[in-house]
Amino acid sequence: MSENKIPYKVYLNENEMPTAWYNLRADMVSKPAPLLNPGTGLPLSAEELAPIFCEELVRQELDDETAFFPIPQEILDFYKMYRPSPLVRAYCLEKALGTPAKIYYKFEGNNTSGSHKLNSAIAQAYYAKNQGLKGVTTETGAGQWGTALSMACAYLGLDCKVFMVKVSYEQKPFRREVMRTYGASVTPSPSTETEVGRKILAEHPGTTGSLGCAISEAVEVATKNPGYRYVLGSVLNQVLLHQSIIGLEAKAAFDKIGVKPDIIIGCAGGGSNLGGLIAPFMGEKLRGEADYRFIAVEPASCPSFTRGKFAYDFCDTGMICPLAKMYTLGSGFIPSPNHAGGLRFHGMSPVLSQLYHDGFMEARAVEQTSVFEAAERFARTEGILPAPESSHAIKAAIDEALRCKETGEEKTILFGLTGTGYFDLVAYQKYNDGEMSDYIPTDEDLEKGFAGLPQVPGLE
Amino acid sequence: MSENKIPYKVYLNENEMPTAWYNLRADMVSKPAPLLNPGTGLPLSAEELAPIFCEELVRQELDDETAFFPIPQEILDFYKMYRPSPLVRAYCLEKALGTPAKIYYKFEGNNTSGSHKLNSAIAQAYYAKNQGLKGVTTETGAGQWGTALSMACAYLGLDCKVFMVKVSYEQKPFRREVMRTYGASVTPSPSTETEVGRKILAEHPGTTGSLGCAISEAVEVATKNPGYRYVLGSVLNQVLLHQSIIGLEAKAAFDKIGVKPDIIIGCAGGGSNLGGLIAPFMGEKLRGEADYRFIAVEPASCPSFTRGKFAYDFCDTGMICPLAKMYTLGSGFIPSPNHAGGLRFHGMSPVLSQLYHDGFMEARAVEQTSVFEAAERFARTEGILPAPESSHAIKAAIDEALRCKETGEEKTILFGLTGTGYFDLVAYQKYNDGEMSDYIPTDEDLEKGFAGLPQVPGLE
Repeated sequence: MSENKIPYKVYLNENEMPTAWYNLRADMVSKPAPLLNPGTGLPLSAEELAPIFCEELVRQELDDETAFFPIPQEILDFYKMYRPSPLVRAYCLEKALGTPAKIYYKFEGNNTSGSHKLNSAIAQAYYAKNQGLKGVTTETGAGQWGTALSMACAYLGLDCKVFMVKVSYEQKPFRREVMRTYGASVTPSPSTETEVGRKILAEHPGTTGSLGCAISEAVEVATKNPGYRYVLGSVLNQVLLHQSIIGLEAKAAFDKIGVKPDIIIGCAGGGSNLGGLIAPFMGEKLRGEADYRFIAVEPASCPSFTRGKFAYDFCDTGMICPLAKMYTLGSGFIPSPNHAGGLRFHGMSPVLSQLYHDGFMEARAVEQTSVFEAAERFARTEGILPAPESSHAIKAAIDEALRCKETGEEKTILFGLTGTGYFDLVAYQKYNDGEMSDYIPTDEDLEKGFAGLPQVPGLE
Repeated sequence: MSENKIPYKVYLNENEMPTAWYNLRADMVSKPAPLLNPGTGLPLSAEELAPIFCEELVRQELDDETAFFPIPQEILDFYKMYRPSPLVRAYCLEKALGTPAKIYYKFEGNNTSGSHKLNSAIAQAYYAKNQGLKGVTTETGAGQWGTALSMACAYLGLDCKVFMVKVSYEQKPFRREVMRTYGASVTPSPSTETEVGRKILAEHPGTTGSLGCAISEAVEVATKNPGYRYVLGSVLNQVLLHQSIIGLEAKAAFDKIGVKPDIIIGCAGGGSNLGGLIAPFMGEKLRGEADYRFIAVEPASCPSFTRGKFAYDFCDTGMICPLAKMYTLGSGFIPSPNHAGGLRFHGMSPVLSQLYHDGFMEARAVEQTSVFEAAERFARTEGILPAPESSHAIKAAIDEALRCKETGEEKTILFGLTGTGYFDLVAYQKYNDGEMSDYIPTDEDLEKGFAGLPQVPGLE
């Protein structure tokens, strides 16, 4: 398609939508390290994971070989309600920047969860329903995952119990209210409803909570209540599998217009969006069929890729979850209270961690005032008010486009616009009022987190 | 297209998007009554309107004959950022209702203003910019219009001053913050910044404001400051003209799949969405080419169609605006404070008023608890959290679909899903907590409003 014919938005037709998820692990030579039992230091078996996760999801979690998993029809039907998401050419942003670069974004915010999280929420809820379960438990931080799961559970008639990081629960009453509208029960974490919550409250009275802590609570409730399982919105291999729908659609849309991106950029918290967006492109790179630059963008206040350690660590604060080998700041790490958005998990997807470790991907950390500056610029030119998380990718995309302006290169940039910022207006207000500050942890701050890395039998 | 091939969402391609707005008045035999000068009782001339509105918009306002107005390229380009909006087949809602009816909705909420308001905001801002103006002033109630105008002005580099009904300003700080992020200045109304605001405050200390009052303030600021004009998000003929893009796209999408709706339903406040949605269909009906049932749905607490008078009235509380002949509750009418959503204007589009008066359209009033019940049902099945305003149309669409279930008729229903409810969570919370109440004004309440209808020279 000739350059000036490329539309503002490329939508796939329903019959062009992907019908299978792509499992990037199948093409990795160095596979991600297995989850370990923290007691024995041995890889976890499907039997050991079954009390926590649904059976089919355990299968997906442990399968490093199968390249494609067919998407069940009921999930495909649900996807059709809000997918395909558009691949958008950012003509207006390009013009405002005066760059020769061509900027595209895959916009995942056009659904009520406000983000890409719904892609995995419906999958996980579906398998729970299919297994005859009564309900699921989960944690949520910024609230996008909890909202997505509530929507999926309402659709399927499943019970949904969400532990919401206390500081978010208090700062975002509207997020809570959306989840309630979809019939979920929402509890601020740490709570007195669980053993681990009571323990954390006793040790850290007045704590505002963390994702790792909410995970511990949700896992405890799932494992103690028959008919319930735990579901997680990021980090896990199964989540990246489901989120591959983002990259598969993006690639199909690019193929449709005959364009190949040079640089692919995504924000990185636990890795769900980044892993999904890059999946099929990274597959090509791993198979030697094409080359791309991949850039993970994380907050300078929670820099797991750029300043973390590649080590086995707990996924939760209460240390009741399996151990995952990943870039981590230590399961006790909590971002500074002035950190406004999501992307606050202490660890990172084991798949992405392995790829980064093996040099297939770059990473950079950015400070939040510069992120909100990019967000505002984007909002005013492209119309969409972006989520703070997504704005990390916007910031890097703008930086790359401005670099092209200097060099005159006409690079094609793709970034993931994971969601909208309608529930982040407290942070925008701080930025608008000039009251937003940055925080970069000192090496001493990080050492405290690293000191909590587990000593596991058989591991250094 | 065979029934089972109809996709969940029909998107037009860019080259199928309408390139001209449709002026329904051209096909009306009984034209809407002209705007009058309240001092003389004579129809307002273009010269008299020029100090208030941009020149091109005055031309559009007064032209009852031209059927199509070409959309300027810059507006078409802006439309491409968030349009076409999808025509969605509500398969999941149909299934949940067990109805043989086929339900479609035209979803206008996939943009940051959260509603269809952006369609006219960009047009009005464009003509202001084109005329070399510095900026525009406006009012906003629920906040969708103010947000839309802020976005359009940010895109074009125009100054934007918004008077926001005080009760909304206080209840919806996040709406205000979105507008600020787009660079608008937002003032709670009534304010001390205008003569009319000071007068209203003196007469009604402690008033929480009204749309009519905010209009008076915005008009005063526009007429007193060189380089500024006033813009309005509903009621006016020009707004219905711009909003015809909704109906034109919907009709093109239906034509694409070979479907013809039987019933077309829209919520009605000032009439911007309803007038835009029905425009091309009503044109066919007026020309005798096809028949459709049109249903306007309004709040029982602000029932201008169903209980108002068809009379000349002021569009604003301060009585500084032209007189319009419309269904009205009187310019002093203010909905009960327990009324949660928008649709709170005392009058109604003169175009729609004339059509309703002439029997081309039905109207019904619904109570807000039943509206939120429909909203929740819709959210849980179709995923989207709807705006309270839009949910009036949902309520009527569900009622019609359930009637089909009784009769076995396979009617095709189209309703306008004007926007999303992300900024209406206070109202949802009230509903979720069982604390929402209904209010139907008594005849005595309404008589007070009617008593304020103007005595105009030459009019009865």
